[in-house]
Amino acid sequence: MELFDVQTIEDAQREVIQSVGKAFLRTEQVPLNDALGRVLAEDIPCAFDVPGFTRSTMDGYAVRAKDTQGAGESIPAFLTVVGEVEMGKAAPVAIRPGECCYVPTGGMLPEGADAVVQVEYSEPFGKNKIAVYHAVSTGRNLILKGEDTKAGEPVLTRGTVLRAQDVGALASAGVTDVPVYEPLRIAVISTGDELTPPGEPLQPGKIYDINTYAVAGMAKSYGHVITSQQVVPDREDRLVAALKSAMKDSDIVCVSGGSSQGKKDMTKRLIDELSDPGVFTHGLAMKPGKPTILGYDSVSKTLLCGLPGHPVAAVYVLELVVLDALNELQGRDAPLTVYARMDQNIGCDAGKSNCFAVKLEETEEGCIAHPVLGKSGLISTMTESDGYLVTDRNKEGIKQGELIKVRLFR
Amino acid sequence: MELFDVQTIEDAQREVIQSVGKAFLRTEQVPLNDALGRVLAEDIPCAFDVPGFTRSTMDGYAVRAKDTQGAGESIPAFLTVVGEVEMGKAAPVAIRPGECCYVPTGGMLPEGADAVVQVEYSEPFGKNKIAVYHAVSTGRNLILKGEDTKAGEPVLTRGTVLRAQDVGALASAGVTDVPVYEPLRIAVISTGDELTPPGEPLQPGKIYDINTYAVAGMAKSYGHVITSQQVVPDREDRLVAALKSAMKDSDIVCVSGGSSQGKKDMTKRLIDELSDPGVFTHGLAMKPGKPTILGYDSVSKTLLCGLPGHPVAAVYVLELVVLDALNELQGRDAPLTVYARMDQNIGCDAGKSNCFAVKLEETEEGCIAHPVLGKSGLISTMTESDGYLVTDRNKEGIKQGELIKVRLFR
Repeated sequence: MELFDVQTIEDAQREVIQSVGKAFLRTEQVPLNDALGRVLAEDIPCAFDVPGFTRSTMDGYAVRAKDTQGAGESIPAFLTVVGEVEMGKAAPVAIRPGECCYVPTGGMLPEGADAVVQVEYSEPFGKNKIAVYHAVSTGRNLILKGEDTKAGEPVLTRGTVLRAQDVGALASAGVTDVPVYEPLRIAVISTGDELTPPGEPLQPGKIYDINTYAVAGMAKSYGHVITSQQVVPDREDRLVAALKSAMKDSDIVCVSGGSSQGKKDMTKRLIDELSDPGVFTHGLAMKPGKPTILGYDSVSKTLLCGLPGHPVAAVYVLELVVLDALNELQGRDAPLTVYARMDQNIGCDAGKSNCFAVKLEETEEGCIAHPVLGKSGLISTMTESDGYLVTDRNKEGIKQGELIKVRLFR
Repeated sequence: MELFDVQTIEDAQREVIQSVGKAFLRTEQVPLNDALGRVLAEDIPCAFDVPGFTRSTMDGYAVRAKDTQGAGESIPAFLTVVGEVEMGKAAPVAIRPGECCYVPTGGMLPEGADAVVQVEYSEPFGKNKIAVYHAVSTGRNLILKGEDTKAGEPVLTRGTVLRAQDVGALASAGVTDVPVYEPLRIAVISTGDELTPPGEPLQPGKIYDINTYAVAGMAKSYGHVITSQQVVPDREDRLVAALKSAMKDSDIVCVSGGSSQGKKDMTKRLIDELSDPGVFTHGLAMKPGKPTILGYDSVSKTLLCGLPGHPVAAVYVLELVVLDALNELQGRDAPLTVYARMDQNIGCDAGKSNCFAVKLEETEEGCIAHPVLGKSGLISTMTESDGYLVTDRNKEGIKQGELIKVRLFR
């Protein structure tokens, strides 16, 4: 039996990044309305101040703050109304001492004014004057020119996964389309004589294929696209044909299955034979996830991933090693983790990063994590969970009450 | 000036749910490969045990555990090998006392066996015998029939937003397509003479439209579809035409804009005139978000939402009131919140649900929330943030160090 020369998750990620390099950073330009969830491939500088002029946040009168000094309920300040700002138009006048100008919410502040008195604190007085019953300080009830984003500053930076407000901010800067990373094309193959695609009748000794669905789903949740998804029996010629075909039109080929020693050896050998320079990772210091094979073919520019056969392990390895390496390459922020306290002692396999699925419970004292323990062949341990924790390799266990970081399932 | 009869967020949600009712719960059947992120419209029962037979989790020998009792490094147990299980086939033999059968990882356990001895703990002995150097207990190295999901139990329940592992679990149960809720069709209108669609040159006094992009993005992040997205000037005839047209082919029409009193009044009046029974919410006990109008038209079955003009307020109201009401109607789980400690004292407007955008920082002691304060007209306060907190209405402030729940931006 060949002994695995196991790698840490971090080392394997680094090798993935070094192997695929810029070949995996293709970009495309998409209209803003299609940009939600996409990853910015460049910083987007703001070409002008947003907003481009100082705006009122209230219906009221644009004034020189100084002119309202000392004004109150009993001693109003009297100002001459010299005009009215129309929405969406330049202010028609400039304000001189003792003057004011009506301005609606969102309207442009006239030159000379430096604050707005809410209409509720004023009263008409005579033909073209108002009484102001409230003193305002400079800047009151205003959004200043450039207060949202200043000209030349980036609206957003490379690696931002665009959310609703990010798309809104790009619109505020007049952006109509943005450079984003192309989704990577991923082929998913599940190997095993025991596997039956859902929809076909199940013969004795067979099970329905889980892995192509779970693996494809995880890849899609990061915005990648699936080029093909198939079940292949344990025959070398069939697997070679499937791999070669997938390598033609995909950036990444994920093969899962082969948990028995003979099948693991075959997967490793085939990935190595079909790729140049070939396998760079065989075995991870990770539980579950040890029987992982990673290789790169620089000719077809394909990353070849031999994922573990157990579905839970396949999903963890795909996310923690492959997808996280690609996220780092694209400059995405590290995934936000949730802090929780463990509800029980659990033992770890020291020397490995141990993954435990947990169900989270919100309580008055914060979040409690309940581990959902079970064999890595049981997909139900993941469906019942909200996320998972990955232990430090030097940990021998997690104590009850210990604060842990939980990565949420997507 | 009309005084708002403000409603709480919860009351407004309840009114939305009562108004739209089952008209908004249309379902459709989608293939499993298109189901990621969709919301299950029914419980999905498992028609059979998963797995359908007891499987080995190791390469080894299926044995009767009793036959290995007392076996160890120095005193092996000797068993007769009576066969070999092939992957994906029924076990060829039954095991009687003193017998064993080779079984690969994932293979079917033969009748009579109740545990598996790993091949590493065995040694060939003579022609058809093995020496076993390790005692195993009943159930060792097995996944039992039905251990993942038992026949008749639900694989997943109504309201589940399908993640990668959920799609995998459905595949394991042989499911090929699933009933999910149809996305709701949402029209987005931004009103204002000051608004210019990105791509057009910006005249003095004008700003680029943010709201249709941010509002459409938030709706899409929950899986809904946008039927139309447009900017309309402050003219009653234009707004009426846009609303009428949107009501024809949409379930929800979101109009944002109109922060000045006159425009707010017009939005409320038009929503009321165009719908029957009409406006049920005018004003929310929420900051920002007070100037919100909600109405329902039972003829066209359209929910009409007058969202605040400030983009930050529009996004909060859309998510907390409208989308959360729809989520509850569909039976989705409440959104998972992150616990964090506030880094400073902040004051609240008591009597209202105050929303504060926060940036989260991970530290050794847990998560710290830094509020990103700013006027609700500044979309950058949201782009810089990871999520937001919504205070209880009776709160007058949050103290430094207080544990808060943060809802993550999507």
